[in-house]
Amino acid sequence: MEATPLERCHIGLLRWFVAATQILGLTAVIITGVWLGHYQGGFAWDGSSQQFNVHPLCMVLGMVFLYGDAILVFRTLRNESKTTAKILHASIQLLALVAVIVGTIAVFDFHTAQNIPQMYSLHSWCGLLTIILFCLQWVMGLTFFLLPTLSYSLRAIYHPYHVYFGLGLFILAIGTCLAGITEKLLFSIGATYSKYDPQGILANVLGLLLVSFGFVVGYILSRDEWKREASPEEEALSMHFKTLTEGGSPDSQRDQ
Amino acid sequence: MEATPLERCHIGLLRWFVAATQILGLTAVIITGVWLGHYQGGFAWDGSSQQFNVHPLCMVLGMVFLYGDAILVFRTLRNESKTTAKILHASIQLLALVAVIVGTIAVFDFHTAQNIPQMYSLHSWCGLLTIILFCLQWVMGLTFFLLPTLSYSLRAIYHPYHVYFGLGLFILAIGTCLAGITEKLLFSIGATYSKYDPQGILANVLGLLLVSFGFVVGYILSRDEWKREASPEEEALSMHFKTLTEGGSPDSQRDQ
Repeated sequence: MEATPLERCHIGLLRWFVAATQILGLTAVIITGVWLGHYQGGFAWDGSSQQFNVHPLCMVLGMVFLYGDAILVFRTLRNESKTTAKILHASIQLLALVAVIVGTIAVFDFHTAQNIPQMYSLHSWCGLLTIILFCLQWVMGLTFFLLPTLSYSLRAIYHPYHVYFGLGLFILAIGTCLAGITEKLLFSIGATYSKYDPQGILANVLGLLLVSFGFVVGYILSRDEWKREASPEEEALSMHFKTLTEGGSPDSQRDQ
Repeated sequence: MEATPLERCHIGLLRWFVAATQILGLTAVIITGVWLGHYQGGFAWDGSSQQFNVHPLCMVLGMVFLYGDAILVFRTLRNESKTTAKILHASIQLLALVAVIVGTIAVFDFHTAQNIPQMYSLHSWCGLLTIILFCLQWVMGLTFFLLPTLSYSLRAIYHPYHVYFGLGLFILAIGTCLAGITEKLLFSIGATYSKYDPQGILANVLGLLLVSFGFVVGYILSRDEWKREASPEEEALSMHFKTLTEGGSPDSQRDQ
């Protein structure tokens, strides 16, 4: 189906917003690397503070950047099949999950090696909650939307919760990063942070970049005209699948 | 118009969710009061740390609890006119704004009195950004939606941005609180926080309550069936207003 001039204009604008997310997200990952690599002594896996440094890098990469990109798949892949979009979404989220698990092991291991108690801070509470819910969300997403086991109506019931909690966890991850950056700065440059230490400024900029990434991703999701339209074949397939199972409300013409 | 049994069921469920927000929000305000009143020496306005304590209390009260309740007005006031809902929304946001301004002056004054530099932390950057945008948002809301100066089509163009940035600032305020709680705990009980100090646990619980409040408010806003339906009179008035000005897209039957 040929796109109308208005639709082409919408898609053109969407591309600019997606480009903005990639610039913000990649810059955030690079600044995290520079902060920890240049100011905090680099990376290692030996129980030292260099092992701790693996934690923020993996979290910004996995729980923010890759996670955000995985959500955006349903806005950026417009001509591929719904199944392709779902497989790519699940694959990027799997990469994100691996990064998050490595990042989590890094910090728990570091605490054990340095005899620092686990799970006492607000950052750790919010972080563990986010990680557990992310794992659950990934397994539920796989079970409901990729394995051909569940009926159309069950998928339709779960779908808005997957979307809501998916976005909620992404936002919670960014909020948790703000607390984490604050914690790390007060532990490492507590004496000079208030003197506008360049390291402090850099990490503050990182925090603002993460917030901006979240704002732009959220904005893209909020615009109805940027939702991916199901192709006529997908509509027909969806109706067929629905008929094969038990019937339910008709498939929406636009994906959520 | 008589509500159908399904609509009555939806509204019944909405009431439970709104009740949950009030329990979460009020508990958060009370815990903030207990934390600062009992563990941090109470409140004063003399440049001391008791003056600092005014800051978190005002921010949790204004920028989270009242702000969240002001958003919910468009879900809870279902039988009153749209104008009543808008006036109540603007009034609660004005109360929130007063609390936020008092809370901001409290912390700037405290920093000056104690010779602590201003605006060096990530919390302060995110906080000032939120406050400036909140002031702008309030003035824009008043100008666009309460003063009878602007045309229907201009209102319709601005409306989705008001809704998106309104929710975005609410979320940013909660994220800023997570960084602020972390900062305050590390400054005041840095040595015992990792030993599961009861004060630390209490403040962590406060953080989780704020996150939960945000999650439930966000969930209420995300459900289409909980949106306030415009009455037939409001529909007619809106069409009349539109005709009087310059014409635009028809008013949506449900408020955003």
